[in-house]
Amino acid sequence: MNAEIIAVGSELLLGQIANTNAQFISKQLAEIGVNVFYHTVVGDNGTRLKKAIETAQQRANLIIFTGGLGPTKDDLTKETIAEVLGKQLVIHQGALDSIEDYFRQTNRVMTPNNRKQALVLEGSTVLFNHYGMAPGMALKIDDIHYMLLPGPPKEMQPMFQKFGQAYIKKQLGKTERIESRVLRFFGIGESQLETEIEDLLDRQSNPTIAPLAGDGEVTLRLTAKHSSLEEAMKMLDEAEKEIQRRVGEYFYGYDDTSLYAELAETLKEKKLTIASAESLTGGLFSERLTSIPGAGSITRGGIVSYHTDVKEHCLGVSHDTLHDYGAVSHQCAKEMAENVRKLCGSDIGISFTGVAGPKIQEGKEVGTVFMGIAIEDCPTEVFHLQLSGDRQSIRTKTVKYGCHYLLRLLHV
Amino acid sequence: MNAEIIAVGSELLLGQIANTNAQFISKQLAEIGVNVFYHTVVGDNGTRLKKAIETAQQRANLIIFTGGLGPTKDDLTKETIAEVLGKQLVIHQGALDSIEDYFRQTNRVMTPNNRKQALVLEGSTVLFNHYGMAPGMALKIDDIHYMLLPGPPKEMQPMFQKFGQAYIKKQLGKTERIESRVLRFFGIGESQLETEIEDLLDRQSNPTIAPLAGDGEVTLRLTAKHSSLEEAMKMLDEAEKEIQRRVGEYFYGYDDTSLYAELAETLKEKKLTIASAESLTGGLFSERLTSIPGAGSITRGGIVSYHTDVKEHCLGVSHDTLHDYGAVSHQCAKEMAENVRKLCGSDIGISFTGVAGPKIQEGKEVGTVFMGIAIEDCPTEVFHLQLSGDRQSIRTKTVKYGCHYLLRLLHV
Repeated sequence: MNAEIIAVGSELLLGQIANTNAQFISKQLAEIGVNVFYHTVVGDNGTRLKKAIETAQQRANLIIFTGGLGPTKDDLTKETIAEVLGKQLVIHQGALDSIEDYFRQTNRVMTPNNRKQALVLEGSTVLFNHYGMAPGMALKIDDIHYMLLPGPPKEMQPMFQKFGQAYIKKQLGKTERIESRVLRFFGIGESQLETEIEDLLDRQSNPTIAPLAGDGEVTLRLTAKHSSLEEAMKMLDEAEKEIQRRVGEYFYGYDDTSLYAELAETLKEKKLTIASAESLTGGLFSERLTSIPGAGSITRGGIVSYHTDVKEHCLGVSHDTLHDYGAVSHQCAKEMAENVRKLCGSDIGISFTGVAGPKIQEGKEVGTVFMGIAIEDCPTEVFHLQLSGDRQSIRTKTVKYGCHYLLRLLHV
Repeated sequence: MNAEIIAVGSELLLGQIANTNAQFISKQLAEIGVNVFYHTVVGDNGTRLKKAIETAQQRANLIIFTGGLGPTKDDLTKETIAEVLGKQLVIHQGALDSIEDYFRQTNRVMTPNNRKQALVLEGSTVLFNHYGMAPGMALKIDDIHYMLLPGPPKEMQPMFQKFGQAYIKKQLGKTERIESRVLRFFGIGESQLETEIEDLLDRQSNPTIAPLAGDGEVTLRLTAKHSSLEEAMKMLDEAEKEIQRRVGEYFYGYDDTSLYAELAETLKEKKLTIASAESLTGGLFSERLTSIPGAGSITRGGIVSYHTDVKEHCLGVSHDTLHDYGAVSHQCAKEMAENVRKLCGSDIGISFTGVAGPKIQEGKEVGTVFMGIAIEDCPTEVFHLQLSGDRQSIRTKTVKYGCHYLLRLLHV
């Protein structure tokens, strides 16, 4: 089976957004061993879309479309496919019901054009949309599979993962097992990590080892192919073992986890609660931790002490500390962590104070960060970081280092 | 002139990276009035690249390639184009000199495969690469323009901006002005907005009107073409005036702004400070507002009262309120906003309490949100929202509604 992904939308051709949908689907297809030979982007134009479909029919037997399933006039993906394939569009009652439900629930008036979203290609398998109104669909005609997915990534991604991939796997029948495992590292640069495993990268073949860096993290994706699942897993285990021996110190988790999810999991296991006192990060640590469902059992909340007055009057950092050492200091980070722990009644208090930029502050350079971790009955630890990057990058790295150091302390 | 952008690289088809090069070039081309009709991505495979070129020759008269100009065996863009066009590759002395210089300067040994990077298509205009070794090139054969650019965005972007765009403008001869303006709306659904301006969308031609929805917002991009800048601006003004007359109520800003940036700007202008009390949003409002440089003059900080104890003991919400009405209530939102304002000594207090999901809470449905706004010497306002979507989407919409309602109150 070889695939082509056709993204439909003039916003892509105008450069308003990047085609991240093709990236996402390609990654998922690679994991189940489907080759992708082409990506195509075409605008909201029936004639050109029709030509793109005809070209794809010559060179692929799985054509996946994203976008153009919405309620407006320029959404014409399914109409054009229906025309090319000589199929009718029919109302899908389940989809129509859920669209009507959506409007009822949100107390909004359903305009008539929304009915159009419930139209599907006759004979197709309908893929449910749990995050939006337009359903997806899949069908096979003359040995070519067609799959239609909505454009917004928030709708497309869960639909493809939940229904799309399963549909394709079923069509594939049995094939070679392709097993992947992503190892996630923090606190080591990409080039340093690659140097440590250079010989493994040079002689890789099966499993393959693909490094990828971003946002202060480095990941290695190991992919093994074998007819037996057991053998494929064994190959991954062996490759991982050698990598862990060399750089395991920086490893924090597998696959789609995050430092925040790992921290939340560890706190849950150890039945510990946490509260944060945030200055330069402005609530980012707390926001990331509470983005995880079930955060209620581990997070008490915290104080965003962006202004010095709030540090002093809400958080109780002593006037002398602020006066003698400044807000960006070891001493201030220590008091922030200890005080927020007591104020919020948590087992752990964590604090972040520093200079996110663009300007220096208290004579301290952009990227200077102090981070405190106060744990009941333990001496408070304070870490000093010197980070690079723009404002948002410094803030993100700061909270990731917070997770990283706290995880280390908790795993001792 | 109409363009197709062909990105060459298997890493794109494997989903390792998104095709941001096509996005960048498309945006730049839109600005100079060149229509882009297709993007194509093809792997490092000579046969399939050849087919992609032949397809593009049928439908475009400007074909821009990115990637595959490097030193390794799988870099075969110029070799394949040479074959399709029946052209030779010749060493470009300037390019070779600068490659040799690069190795001398960095004290590295030049491997023979690096010489390959100095090969260019005979008769082409060479585009210099100030950030890497592979030069770009442009040439015209049989009324079709071909432009070859390197794959790494750090090399491609400055090359296209400095040389590529100028080359294309020169070919275009007379330059029509293309002016764009993005109008941003919040609080109105995409389909409702389109219904309100349906007749304008139907008869659009110059300026064009392109709607785009995402993350609870809707934008309209107006694009006018005219030989005179003044006329183009006048056309945009007229189109905007009619749109504002119909849906201006939901308009909040132009181009690349955000609700957070607009709120920060308004607070700065009015010399007002703000503090937030956040429950379901976990610090997201505060984090977004402090992500804007210079937030120090408007944000005091706030309290993340995720746990009920923190609402009661840090934020001072009365025990009776929490007991009688619950944490997700009008009354609790009101006290949270009023108390955080006093505690942090700000002019405005804003609060968010609700159910982000996945589970119901206090018998209240997922998506139930109460939001309080307390302004000194004004009666506190409380808003009740019923939102849909997953956990993160509800949290994001909640803080956007916070900005939206506060902006309305401040602009009265």
